[in-house]
Amino acid sequence: MTDYEFDTDTAVERLADGVYSACVADRWSIGQVPNGGYTMAIAQRALLDSLGRPDPLTVTAHFLRPPTAGPATLHTEQVRAGRRTATAAVRLEQDGVERLRLLGIATDLSQDGGTEGFRAGDPPDLPPVEECQRISGGSPSVDGPSISARFDVAYHPEHLGWARGEPTGRPEVAAWVRLADGRQPDVAMLPIVVDCMPPTAFELGAVGWVPTLELTLHVRSRPAPGWLRCVSRSRFLTGGLIEEDAEVWDSADRLVAMSRQLAMVPAPRA
Amino acid sequence: MTDYEFDTDTAVERLADGVYSACVADRWSIGQVPNGGYTMAIAQRALLDSLGRPDPLTVTAHFLRPPTAGPATLHTEQVRAGRRTATAAVRLEQDGVERLRLLGIATDLSQDGGTEGFRAGDPPDLPPVEECQRISGGSPSVDGPSISARFDVAYHPEHLGWARGEPTGRPEVAAWVRLADGRQPDVAMLPIVVDCMPPTAFELGAVGWVPTLELTLHVRSRPAPGWLRCVSRSRFLTGGLIEEDAEVWDSADRLVAMSRQLAMVPAPRA
Repeated sequence: MTDYEFDTDTAVERLADGVYSACVADRWSIGQVPNGGYTMAIAQRALLDSLGRPDPLTVTAHFLRPPTAGPATLHTEQVRAGRRTATAAVRLEQDGVERLRLLGIATDLSQDGGTEGFRAGDPPDLPPVEECQRISGGSPSVDGPSISARFDVAYHPEHLGWARGEPTGRPEVAAWVRLADGRQPDVAMLPIVVDCMPPTAFELGAVGWVPTLELTLHVRSRPAPGWLRCVSRSRFLTGGLIEEDAEVWDSADRLVAMSRQLAMVPAPRA
Repeated sequence: MTDYEFDTDTAVERLADGVYSACVADRWSIGQVPNGGYTMAIAQRALLDSLGRPDPLTVTAHFLRPPTAGPATLHTEQVRAGRRTATAAVRLEQDGVERLRLLGIATDLSQDGGTEGFRAGDPPDLPPVEECQRISGGSPSVDGPSISARFDVAYHPEHLGWARGEPTGRPEVAAWVRLADGRQPDVAMLPIVVDCMPPTAFELGAVGWVPTLELTLHVRSRPAPGWLRCVSRSRFLTGGLIEEDAEVWDSADRLVAMSRQLAMVPAPRA
């Protein structure tokens, strides 16, 4: 662990077998609400520590109630311990109320992580970083999300139509992504990386609060140092629900992670 | 509940608050092992009953150890009960050993399920049923999976290369799907529907046991009566892991469900 912002703000302290304490910071929020991927990253720390394995493999988070900045208690339950993988559930509570439930598998990716057997997909086609678009202040629906100061995100110049008041109608967003303080990427960061861009629903004109019900992250390899490239796409908005599929690629052109989340999109005002 | 095979074989009986019994049948197996989607369908019954809501919204299953045909006990834990949705975890145990863990959200889709806001995708392009291909006996690696007798599945004639000894190299399979005994589709069936086709990895030459670690199902609407169309695709096989993304469409051309599973692909023999 280091003194970088992300490591300080996701640290967990083991109090007893299966019990951890953490402090949810106010530096990764959108409005007053800590980002879902950020609280998931805290819970993932407890998951990995409790299982004694370095890497997440598949982690599902259910966002039950909005967390707040302040102390949190985490309870881990080992579900299965195998040779190659182990499984645990994690509850993140604040003021005695569960905010987040995790169910995930941990493993050691140092052996075979990233070996390619088949690939039908490439990193997102992004112009050079300097030709991409930075935004500050994030969503127009909230005042200056603190999370936007933690990240250095350079978006595809043809995306982010909503920020120009002209949603593109294509629910896709791609960007170069790194932490602003120079911390290099690793698997601990991935939950917040897949959740750090504005919702794709914004490009459909649904700019506002798009609460995520569930997010599942698949980790494919440990990221190489340098910029990450992220892309997030949706294909179906039905019954007020949208799926958001993200991919994370590293500087060595390797697929690092895939995620899918299910989010609620408020009906447009008539 | 009816006397159809699926309903008989997925029935759960409430023994006490949060405790159910079930009997895992041998009619939905591949070799000696009951299909993962089938045991997930049993656990989903307990999830919905315990939450008192008719429809699954997002359900994640972790396949911990192979189940066997025979009695099972299910324990449900209510995680959150909200106005629109409720969340629970379910453990399925046999002989005191947990085989399957579920984490899922239930809701009532009768209100707004299926209303389309945006769609960038269509049902799989399948020839008429009579021009599609039925297979019996299922995977060549096992003897006559019993599950194949429960389903009527008519595959795209250009898929299933592996069954002709010529894997297509494209990890995609699409088919018309219905239950053989005439039971109409509903949301209870969806876990087994998204898991009823041969693994896409077969088309990459990896014919054999492809154990699923985790499967997440998103339900978008209640299916209309009639044939379902299913498609399953993979894009990345890395480090011995493959994702398999499935879609289920109904006879009214509505997207019924999406699923993604993460499975282990054995390394090819040198």
